[in-house]
Amino acid sequence: MTSLMDKSPKERASLLQDWQKQYELVSGNLLSMDLSRGKPAADQLALSDALENAIDGDYRAKDGTDVRNYGGLRGLPEARALGAELLETPAAHVIAGGNSSLALMHLVIRTALDKGLWQDERAWAKADAPTLITPVPGYDRHFTLTAALGINMLNVEMTDKGPNMDQVRSLIADDPNIKGIWNVPKYSNPTGCTYSDATVAQMAALPNDAAADDFVVLWDNAYAVHDLEFPGAKLASIYDASVALGTQDHVAQFASTSKVTFAGAGIAFIGSGPTVLDSLEKELQHMTIGPDKVNQLRHSRFLDGRIEDHMRAHAELLKPKFEVVLDTLERELGDLGVAQWTRPKGGYFVSLDVGPGLAKKVIQLAEDVGLTLTPAGATFPHGEDPEDRNVRIAPTFAALDELTEAMLILTLCIKLATAQGMHD
Amino acid sequence: MTSLMDKSPKERASLLQDWQKQYELVSGNLLSMDLSRGKPAADQLALSDALENAIDGDYRAKDGTDVRNYGGLRGLPEARALGAELLETPAAHVIAGGNSSLALMHLVIRTALDKGLWQDERAWAKADAPTLITPVPGYDRHFTLTAALGINMLNVEMTDKGPNMDQVRSLIADDPNIKGIWNVPKYSNPTGCTYSDATVAQMAALPNDAAADDFVVLWDNAYAVHDLEFPGAKLASIYDASVALGTQDHVAQFASTSKVTFAGAGIAFIGSGPTVLDSLEKELQHMTIGPDKVNQLRHSRFLDGRIEDHMRAHAELLKPKFEVVLDTLERELGDLGVAQWTRPKGGYFVSLDVGPGLAKKVIQLAEDVGLTLTPAGATFPHGEDPEDRNVRIAPTFAALDELTEAMLILTLCIKLATAQGMHD
Repeated sequence: MTSLMDKSPKERASLLQDWQKQYELVSGNLLSMDLSRGKPAADQLALSDALENAIDGDYRAKDGTDVRNYGGLRGLPEARALGAELLETPAAHVIAGGNSSLALMHLVIRTALDKGLWQDERAWAKADAPTLITPVPGYDRHFTLTAALGINMLNVEMTDKGPNMDQVRSLIADDPNIKGIWNVPKYSNPTGCTYSDATVAQMAALPNDAAADDFVVLWDNAYAVHDLEFPGAKLASIYDASVALGTQDHVAQFASTSKVTFAGAGIAFIGSGPTVLDSLEKELQHMTIGPDKVNQLRHSRFLDGRIEDHMRAHAELLKPKFEVVLDTLERELGDLGVAQWTRPKGGYFVSLDVGPGLAKKVIQLAEDVGLTLTPAGATFPHGEDPEDRNVRIAPTFAALDELTEAMLILTLCIKLATAQGMHD
Repeated sequence: MTSLMDKSPKERASLLQDWQKQYELVSGNLLSMDLSRGKPAADQLALSDALENAIDGDYRAKDGTDVRNYGGLRGLPEARALGAELLETPAAHVIAGGNSSLALMHLVIRTALDKGLWQDERAWAKADAPTLITPVPGYDRHFTLTAALGINMLNVEMTDKGPNMDQVRSLIADDPNIKGIWNVPKYSNPTGCTYSDATVAQMAALPNDAAADDFVVLWDNAYAVHDLEFPGAKLASIYDASVALGTQDHVAQFASTSKVTFAGAGIAFIGSGPTVLDSLEKELQHMTIGPDKVNQLRHSRFLDGRIEDHMRAHAELLKPKFEVVLDTLERELGDLGVAQWTRPKGGYFVSLDVGPGLAKKVIQLAEDVGLTLTPAGATFPHGEDPEDRNVRIAPTFAALDELTEAMLILTLCIKLATAQGMHD
C-alpha cells in the first residue's frame, strides 16, 4: 500500500468518501468511552484487595511504633524501605509520605522557590524569572503545578533516549534563571521511552554544569516497576551517579504505589540528599503531624518481597491492551504515513503524532462521536502544542472490547482528518 | 490551711525543706513519663480497630464511585456528610481531604496569602505586614504554621468565654494588616473553654467589622465531639451566624477524625463558603489527584450514626484521667495559692498558670526527674510566654497509675519552685 500522500487525487477522494461514510455510521450510534487518563482498570485494582487484610489486628511496625497514633514525619521504616526499593536508594534517603507524589513534588518546588532546599541563602524566588526545563511531550500535571507556582517553562525535545541533552546543557550553561528540569525517566509519560545510561549520567551532572547554583533534577519515577515485559527496561541509578558526582542534594526523586495498589490510596515517596530531606522535614513540621502510618504499614506488609510478582499480574492484564492499541495503529495506519507512534515496554501511555495542525481536529472528531481523549496540547506546557500534533492514548482503564472499538474510531478519525486536510 | 504567701517565714522554710527532700527522693529514681502531647492512649485507639473491617470487599461508595481509583477532589459524598456532622454545616459546604487538618489549614493560609481565597485581586501578601490575631494561651501548631509563612501574630487574652472580643474588635477596626484570627472554639487548646453564644455571634461578624476586606475567621473545631460529659458543651453554629451576616466566605472551619479514630490516619475536613471552596479546589488541582477515598469510605461506614456512642466510650477512658489531674491539683495545691487551673468538660488539655516567672523553672524541675511536659512558652507565639506562667497538661496518653505519679511530681515541682522563689 502506498502512503496517503503518494496516492492519486482520485484514490484519495474515494478513500475520503469511504471514511466519511464510516464516520457517519459511527456518529449515529453515540458512544461513551474515555481514553483520556492513565487510570488502572477495575481488574487491576482487584489485584490489591488483600491490602485490607494486611493489618489483621497487628498495628505494630517493626520498630515497635503503634501506627494508630501520631508521629514520625519521615514515615515508618518499612515504608521507607519500600520507597527505597522503588527508587533504588538507601532507605535513609527516603521520606515516605501520604497518598500523593504530586503533593510531594509541590512541596519540593514550593520550598525550593520560597525558602530554598539547602537551609542557606539560595531560593529560586530570588531569581528574576525562575524557569524549569520541560521535555515535551510530557506529563500535564508537572506543567500545571509549575505554572501555578508562577515558574516559567522552557521546552526541549524528547528523544527515545530521554531529553535532548545537548539542548539542555546549552540552555543551562549560561542562564542562572534555569533552576531545574522535569523528568519521567522510565516509560516516560507519554512517549514510554526509558532514559539511556548516558542520559542518566549527564542528568546527574547537570547541577555541576548549570549556571544556577540551586539547580534541581526532578526525577518523577512514576513507572519504576510498571513493566509490560520481564525483565523490564533497565534505568540506570541516578542515585549512584549523583553520589559519585556530589550532586545528590540537587536530585529529587519521586515514586508512589498509586499504580501498584490502589490509585490515590497508596503511599508516595521522595528520595534526595540529607540536606534536602532535612529542609523538607522542617517544612512538613509546619504542615502536618505526620503521614498515615496505618496505610504505610498495610502497604509495606502487602508488597513485602513480592513487587515483581504483583507487577507481573498487572502486566498480564495490561499487555493485551497495549497490543490492541499498537496492532490497530499498525493495521489501520501502518502504510498510510499519516501518523507515528511509540511502542512502550511499560508505563501507561502510547504517544501518537499526527500530521501538523491535526491533533485538535482528530480529538474533536473523536469527541463528537463519544470518544474522549486527553485534550489536545495537554502534553505541552500551557496546553500549547506548537505543531498541534501530539495525541496521548491511555489504554489501561477501558475494557478490552471497548478499547478495540475505540482504537478503530481513533484511527478512523486520524484518516478522516488527514484526508480532509489534504482535500481542503 | 493558709496560702503559702500568708504563712510565716519559718513555716515556709520548713515546707521548703520538706519539698526539697521529697524532690531529692524522686530524683534518685529517674522516671520516664511524658505529659507533653495531646495523643490518645492505646485503649482509646483500640476502640476503632474495627475500622479495618469496614470495607469488607465492598469498595463502592454510595454514589457508585470505585474508591480504589483516582478522582474526586472534594472527597466522597459520605465523607463530606461526616465532616458536615462534625462542623454542623451542609455537606455541600465541606471538602473531605487527607489525614491532616493542619495540612488543610496550611492550604487555606498559603492560598489566602499568595493568591487570595476569592478569585479576585485580594491577597494577604499585598499588605505591608499581614497579621493574624492569636488568642493566648493557644495551640502551638497554629503559631508555628503562621510564623513559617511569614505572617505576624498579635496576642489577645483568652477568657473562659473565648477571646476578649473588645480587644479583638478594637484591633481589627483600624488596621487593614490584620487578616484573621485563630480559634479553637470548643474545649480550646489548652484552656478547655467553649466559646459563648455571644462570642460566636461576634466572631461571625468580624469580617464585616474589620478594616481589612479579606479578613478570615479560622475556626479549628478540633474537639467538636470530644466531650467528657453528655450532653457536652454546646457551641453555637458559626455557619448559621455567618450565613445570616453574609460572611460565610470569610469563615474557614476545620475538623478531623484524628482523636475520634486513629490519630494521624483519619480524615480531615474544611468547611467554608462556595467561593472559598472553589478557590481551594483550584489550588488542590495542582497538588494532588485527590484524597485517599478508601480511608474516607472506611471511616464513613465505621462512624455512620454512632459518633456519640463512640465518643462516650472515649470519655469513659478519659474522664478518670482528667479527674486524677484535677483532684491532685486540688488536693496538693488547693489552699496554697500557688497556681490556677482550668476544669475542662472535654478536649485534651488542662491549662495551669503558676506564679509569674516560674513556668520554665517548674518544667525544668520536672524534666530533671524524668517527667516531660509541653515546653514552657509553647502555648504562645514564638514560644514566648510574656509572664512565663503557663503550663499545659496533656493527661490522655499516660496510663492512669503513671498519671497519678506524674501529677504528684508536677505539683511537688510547683510547690518547690514557688517556695524557692519566695526564699531567694
